Amino acid sequence: MMLTPTDLTDATEVTDPTSDPLTFGVGVRVTAAVMADDYAAVLTRALAGLDTAGLAVETGDVSTYAGGSESDLLRWLTDLAQALAATERHVALTVHLSRGCPGEVVCDLPGGAGPRGGEVPTSRTTGRWAAAEWALYPLADQAVTGGEPDHMRDIYAAIDHARELGTFRVSEHFVTRLEGDVGDVLATAVAGWVLVGRGVQHVTSHLTLSLNSPSHVGRAR
Amino acid sequence: MMLTPTDLTDATEVTDPTSDPLTFGVGVRVTAAVMADDYAAVLTRALAGLDTAGLAVETGDVSTYAGGSESDLLRWLTDLAQALAATERHVALTVHLSRGCPGEVVCDLPGGAGPRGGEVPTSRTTGRWAAAEWALYPLADQAVTGGEPDHMRDIYAAIDHARELGTFRVSEHFVTRLEGDVGDVLATAVAGWVLVGRGVQHVTSHLTLSLNSPSHVGRAR
Repeated sequence: MMLTPTDLTDATEVTDPTSDPLTFGVGVRVTAAVMADDYAAVLTRALAGLDTAGLAVETGDVSTYAGGSESDLLRWLTDLAQALAATERHVALTVHLSRGCPGEVVCDLPGGAGPRGGEVPTSRTTGRWAAAEWALYPLADQAVTGGEPDHMRDIYAAIDHARELGTFRVSEHFVTRLEGDVGDVLATAVAGWVLVGRGVQHVTSHLTLSLNSPSHVGRAR
Repeated sequence: MMLTPTDLTDATEVTDPTSDPLTFGVGVRVTAAVMADDYAAVLTRALAGLDTAGLAVETGDVSTYAGGSESDLLRWLTDLAQALAATERHVALTVHLSRGCPGEVVCDLPGGAGPRGGEVPTSRTTGRWAAAEWALYPLADQAVTGGEPDHMRDIYAAIDHARELGTFRVSEHFVTRLEGDVGDVLATAVAGWVLVGRGVQHVTSHLTLSLNSPSHVGRAR
């Protein structure tokens, strides 16, 4: 079932904008590039089979948008990545998470809103291996609780969490390299984004995943 | 010729870290996903034909890194996009620009360094059309000249520049949609990144381009 933002909330009735994910602008844009001649059929099938419960989904020519809670987004992303990996095609999956800046240029949240708390969603193991490059951006242009904006402190905390999940491999120019079960890799990025989001309203994260790369043959699942 | 960072600069002799692009961390990571069975051969040929003068280039399994001046990076990106578009395959090209945060976790610039100025590189028309989604992130975790960090002000200036170049189409959840000659689209993103970078040391920008999409048949070149 496709949900639209107006189905899920009437913004004038939401007194705490951090409590409703769509009002707060919690969502993702994904681009799935299947490196095969039959890419269109493969992608259509993969998307059509996904459970979209709790999410507002809009497909487009450059990316597909999904909005909703962090745990529903992680579920949907994990299902999508698993479905794409199961096709055995080489796929580049680009994930762009955002929170705290709804609206399309201005962060349309009255009075600044403040950060949105919440639990870190747990991962689901898929049996499919991926390598990824991850960037995490606390954008301290809104209210920040507790101390000066300090992106490096928040990024270190997110990287520590990646080490705990076992997906951290190495830091490279501009990104952190992650490897492991694609469910764990996605959960790592979502966790860092949620953790930083407890102290900073507007946080984005970009993740580029490689599935079924020929250079990964023989890597652990 | 492949250049490495140590060929181009000895950091201990650079008294103004903003003057040398590699010392300052000016670079890009690109992922080119060719949606065809022969993707590996197509990508290898496209990369091999590029002029890498002035750049340090490192290929990897998830993305390829290139470091150097803004104008050399724009030249290389435009050549790459044009070569990929000329294959007539549908391609998703993901571009991640960064400036002002060299090193891999900490922004290794002594004393903060400050913003790096410079000219906005001019575009080269390719005759190839693209649609793209663009995000621009001033990360005010370093010294900022003149006033409070205000991401929205800087982002508005970058969008105004996109309107001047004729590539701005519409703002969407989390991104700005650009369309037009792929040389102009790339130049728009580089321009916004350079313009914001005159006032903010650490700026990143992410651009996802769609080349030769079946949904673009009949769109203007």
